[in-house]
Amino acid sequence: MRTASGDTIPGRIAGKLRIKSLPIDTLRENVVFLSRHCHVLRPQRHGGSRKVEVTSAGRSLLASILISDDPAFVGDDEIGLSEPALGRLGVRAGDMVDVAPAQSPSSLEHVREKIRGETLSPQSIALIVGDIAAHRYSDMEVAAFLIASASFMTADEVLSLTRAMANVGARLAWGRDMIVDKHCIGGIPGNRTTMIVAPIVVAHGLLMPKTSSRAITSPAGTADTMEVLARVDLSADEMRAVVETCGGCIVWGGHVNLSPADDVLISVERPLGVDTPEQMVASILSKKLAAGATHLVVDLPVGPTAKIRTTDHAQRIRKLFEFIGARIGIAVEVLLTDGSAPIGRGVGPVLEARDVLNVLKGDADAPPDLREKAIMVAGRLLELDPELRGGRGVARARELLESRQARKAMERMVEAQGPSPIVARTGSRTLDVPAPRDGEVGAIDCYRIASLARLAGAPTDPGAGIDLLKRVGDPVRKGEPLFRIHGEDAADFSASCDAAGEASGFVLR
Amino acid sequence: MRTASGDTIPGRIAGKLRIKSLPIDTLRENVVFLSRHCHVLRPQRHGGSRKVEVTSAGRSLLASILISDDPAFVGDDEIGLSEPALGRLGVRAGDMVDVAPAQSPSSLEHVREKIRGETLSPQSIALIVGDIAAHRYSDMEVAAFLIASASFMTADEVLSLTRAMANVGARLAWGRDMIVDKHCIGGIPGNRTTMIVAPIVVAHGLLMPKTSSRAITSPAGTADTMEVLARVDLSADEMRAVVETCGGCIVWGGHVNLSPADDVLISVERPLGVDTPEQMVASILSKKLAAGATHLVVDLPVGPTAKIRTTDHAQRIRKLFEFIGARIGIAVEVLLTDGSAPIGRGVGPVLEARDVLNVLKGDADAPPDLREKAIMVAGRLLELDPELRGGRGVARARELLESRQARKAMERMVEAQGPSPIVARTGSRTLDVPAPRDGEVGAIDCYRIASLARLAGAPTDPGAGIDLLKRVGDPVRKGEPLFRIHGEDAADFSASCDAAGEASGFVLR
Repeated sequence: MRTASGDTIPGRIAGKLRIKSLPIDTLRENVVFLSRHCHVLRPQRHGGSRKVEVTSAGRSLLASILISDDPAFVGDDEIGLSEPALGRLGVRAGDMVDVAPAQSPSSLEHVREKIRGETLSPQSIALIVGDIAAHRYSDMEVAAFLIASASFMTADEVLSLTRAMANVGARLAWGRDMIVDKHCIGGIPGNRTTMIVAPIVVAHGLLMPKTSSRAITSPAGTADTMEVLARVDLSADEMRAVVETCGGCIVWGGHVNLSPADDVLISVERPLGVDTPEQMVASILSKKLAAGATHLVVDLPVGPTAKIRTTDHAQRIRKLFEFIGARIGIAVEVLLTDGSAPIGRGVGPVLEARDVLNVLKGDADAPPDLREKAIMVAGRLLELDPELRGGRGVARARELLESRQARKAMERMVEAQGPSPIVARTGSRTLDVPAPRDGEVGAIDCYRIASLARLAGAPTDPGAGIDLLKRVGDPVRKGEPLFRIHGEDAADFSASCDAAGEASGFVLR
Repeated sequence: MRTASGDTIPGRIAGKLRIKSLPIDTLRENVVFLSRHCHVLRPQRHGGSRKVEVTSAGRSLLASILISDDPAFVGDDEIGLSEPALGRLGVRAGDMVDVAPAQSPSSLEHVREKIRGETLSPQSIALIVGDIAAHRYSDMEVAAFLIASASFMTADEVLSLTRAMANVGARLAWGRDMIVDKHCIGGIPGNRTTMIVAPIVVAHGLLMPKTSSRAITSPAGTADTMEVLARVDLSADEMRAVVETCGGCIVWGGHVNLSPADDVLISVERPLGVDTPEQMVASILSKKLAAGATHLVVDLPVGPTAKIRTTDHAQRIRKLFEFIGARIGIAVEVLLTDGSAPIGRGVGPVLEARDVLNVLKGDADAPPDLREKAIMVAGRLLELDPELRGGRGVARARELLESRQARKAMERMVEAQGPSPIVARTGSRTLDVPAPRDGEVGAIDCYRIASLARLAGAPTDPGAGIDLLKRVGDPVRKGEPLFRIHGEDAADFSASCDAAGEASGFVLR
């Protein structure tokens, strides 16, 4: 073919640019800097909505564009990348990379079908999940999929979503018939039972390779609290070595790469505050399926300020867990637990770790509600052991805790995982929030306490958070402290103190 | 209140930072650069999802955060802003501004209600629209509102949305009983009738103050094509002056600030490819209501590759237009037109402007389909004139066109709007795409032709685009050119040529 002006058609322009390393942290999203007069593509034609794809030696990265008008910052033959992006791509400053406009993912057509109210096939869902895991969707596209799914999703679609999410990313196999796991849907400050349940179950001899999340909108995830005691950012190989030595672990799932599509979905779901039963079940079970779990106990707290506010709602979620669990080969037991108030005393990584250690040590001062809930959950897991006599689970759990065998199991896991990178110290700034009058604590708002702890700096400052000094039912005198705010950073601490002054979350009666 | 450690509570830390101007264009979104060790707030605590609010002398701006690790780029007491952001905020490099974490907009609670399937009150919708217009929503939050609304919206909600969108932003009033307007929902390449209809209607003496959009995902908006002939980025005051002189105008709506929330919604809707009847009607009618229109003719092309593919679908949209129009006081007439193929010959600003001028000049070579469609639409608008005898509209429109009165009206508007900033020249690179065999043109895919024109560089390069050399029904010989691709930029031109080789959009029979 020849052009009308006589030229032969040029081949697709080779888009080579030289990497410049920029001291910029682009946080959640990949961002590249291109000169307005970039030799390869005109950034203003692509920056509004679509990304560019940067490729080197088979690895590629999708990124949004910012335009530079300063040749000293980014030249016309250069592409500016952050240090983390260089790492992800496995390249260095000065290397040449291929740069091209990213194609709009074809699976978006299926998202549009879902928006139009259609039911998606397993194949369509797998395509969407694959593109999401590969970071081919923009935030707004992820949100579109989430919200379209939130309005209507069949149980079969939830099943397809669960399977598709488990299938992208790593899959762990343990060569054992029974791999136990537990999960709490969150929302209850201080509810750090995993760090007591896992040592009990491991001390009994069941295999429990536990991956946990870091906080996204809460003051602490289990991974944040465990990190006060030990290193948690283990690779899949390191995790396997710990589990082979100790029979279990409590690590952050971030480096293990289980269900990475779920991580992307959650990173949009949480800021939007959208949490449907369907997405919750698919999210949790996809991670458990990828982690090789065979038996799972789910802690579903129900209460007026918890995530799940009515028993009816909780029962619907339980049914969905059971339906999907049965089809993917995981025996799921859902426990509806008391979510009417925070559990334990501390809220925030260091404060929660203190409570956990006190329970494991058998300290007289340990929070009894945290201890009893952990024993109950561990008991349900131990009941799964065919060797154990039916009904003996709770007694056995208590025995393992009181005999300090659970504590020793925890010490072995901590030792195997490696030393914590954190100085375990509560925040140096403190404020006691006093009772405004005589009375009795009638209720404590879970959501409010979590907000105050987060405002105070948790989990960024591990020592920041809330220490609850009174519990529901306690009598209080005017001026007596209800809780203590701990903070390190002046601005965050001050913001939490201000917010506590507006609404403390404590209701006196 | 005193802290337990003895300090009095510090007041909320005053967040003052000094502005540094950075030669970065952040395109659609506002982005600020903060040092990782910023004195005012810890950017890593806020960067993941929420924005910061930058305030100066009562004006404020919400922006996403990027973190700098280079003190030479942004110091700990500095905030880096792009030049356009400085303009929006009315500040200069060196000025001090207040910086604080942006509060999550409380109207998001109503978005969550909508996601849960509730129907929203007019008040809730007004709050959402207000926050969207103030750029308080992130892209993902806008997408959440759009998609939640796409799944279900009552006619009353559409009405509330239309009114709320018209109420934020500017409102124009013209002091006349009849203000006419026309709108096409788009999707048909080359369908540039507005630029013929407006001069005809204005020549007749009706007032038609027309604001148009620029292309978002198409190869040209009416504003892009008009800009080939005249300046279009007029302020509201300048627009008023033109309308008072000429009886009409064709300007870009961007500086007139009509229904700014709609602009934000569209900037998310288009890349997502989501276009529900409800959002389309609210979008169009909110702009017309804000622009002061009393009578509106809507061009709704229906065809297999148009936006609206069935007459059933078009009729549902027509009913919704009529329902909302009646309630907001705009007499709406919806015309279902032939959307089976592109209209005219040129696709892209300069090529379309050439067709328009040829029609206005009465050139023998002018595309007859464009001329006849413009006469038909103009005729419907002229019928609104009580002075004109019923049924005379089309004849009067033809008369105004053939007598060159419309051309003179256009020349007056062009003169009043000011000289075009564009050199009206077709792209210097051209390729004729030949027929692969003998036959007859059976169909031309509107969507494909628009894509090829856009790939070639339109509207960024005004001279880029597609010139259609054959029409549906034309016989062709093998090797005879079907259309010509025009391009300026080598890479874009090449991409369009490649894509045309894969699929030309022409179906031979």
